[in-house]
Amino acid sequence: MRLRNKPWAEDFLKSHPEIVEGSPAGWHGRWKEKFGNDGPLHVEVGSGKGRFVTEMARVHPEVNFIGIEKYESVIVTGVERLLENPVPNVLLLQEDVQELTDFFEEGEVDRIYINFTDPWPKNKHAKRRLTHENFLVKYRNVLKKDGEIHFKTDNQELFEYSLESMTQFGFQLNNVSLDLHKSDIEGNIMTEYEEKFSKKGMRIYRLEASLRK
Amino acid sequence: MRLRNKPWAEDFLKSHPEIVEGSPAGWHGRWKEKFGNDGPLHVEVGSGKGRFVTEMARVHPEVNFIGIEKYESVIVTGVERLLENPVPNVLLLQEDVQELTDFFEEGEVDRIYINFTDPWPKNKHAKRRLTHENFLVKYRNVLKKDGEIHFKTDNQELFEYSLESMTQFGFQLNNVSLDLHKSDIEGNIMTEYEEKFSKKGMRIYRLEASLRK
Repeated sequence: MRLRNKPWAEDFLKSHPEIVEGSPAGWHGRWKEKFGNDGPLHVEVGSGKGRFVTEMARVHPEVNFIGIEKYESVIVTGVERLLENPVPNVLLLQEDVQELTDFFEEGEVDRIYINFTDPWPKNKHAKRRLTHENFLVKYRNVLKKDGEIHFKTDNQELFEYSLESMTQFGFQLNNVSLDLHKSDIEGNIMTEYEEKFSKKGMRIYRLEASLRK
Repeated sequence: MRLRNKPWAEDFLKSHPEIVEGSPAGWHGRWKEKFGNDGPLHVEVGSGKGRFVTEMARVHPEVNFIGIEKYESVIVTGVERLLENPVPNVLLLQEDVQELTDFFEEGEVDRIYINFTDPWPKNKHAKRRLTHENFLVKYRNVLKKDGEIHFKTDNQELFEYSLESMTQFGFQLNNVSLDLHKSDIEGNIMTEYEEKFSKKGMRIYRLEASLRK
């Protein structure tokens, strides 16, 4: 994603604490309290412009959603979208996924979404991939025992890599699709990327992963 | 595969015991003795006309290969091929893979190949797929602790199914390729099917699976 410098972004984000939680570590273990209900908690890591997490929140009002996106200049689009059409059960964090365990208690998260994340194609950058073992450790930590990771990408190499890293780490796979838009999975919410790539006729790969009991 | 009735097949197979071992249960735990060396043992389940297992044996003379194929009318082609160009380190069994544990001792097999096996697309036939849990139990039994399954198919649905069944059973994945002939894997020996489907531009899917240590 091309990053444009938006000097006004920082102030803009700070001025909307009802959408962007500025001190997520303060809610560690208390997100139910923050949302004011006992609903399950679904977290999207690398939520970009926030379309997926916002649409999901609209379609699933019984679930609490948090989108984590590092880049100010990207996350602002999500905030603008939520200002136009407020959705009560979604929050955004402008944070680094590296710090995931600072924000969530062990077993606090029911599901993690990873959508169209940067493939970091060079081997020397493998550690930056959001499906690298170093991140899987964090996901396992914050996920409930029967929690799930839902992962989508258009990048074949990243999907191959993730099949290996996830299963070598101990995850088992469910509902794998190697061509999502030709499969019969229902209720798929598309991200910005997904719509663009899918229109070009590119395959979308998808899997669900959970820890073996 | 279309099966033609070949009334002469039974006698033909019996007349070549140097290629088709008629009493494999008798060699349970003693295949090193049968081959006359201490080489590793690789078994192809559903070896069809035997091209893959024969070519592999030619390329890897240090490995002992066994191809298992149920249908008389199919396996005869492999026998004819081996009569024309003998390869000492390969044997064929005209047997049902269901009986795998009758032929091999626990931990006797180093690697299992499954190539372009019948996808049995209907759910009610899932138990017949060679990557169904009922077969995985048998593979685990006969495989060495660090043994591997190498699996190739052109069938997307079968590959998706197998990703799930294998990982849910406890296998981890290595060297996954979602488009084998566009990847840089070396030393790939093609089966009859593979050559045909690949020429048509169809994707070949491949994975290696091993049990987590």
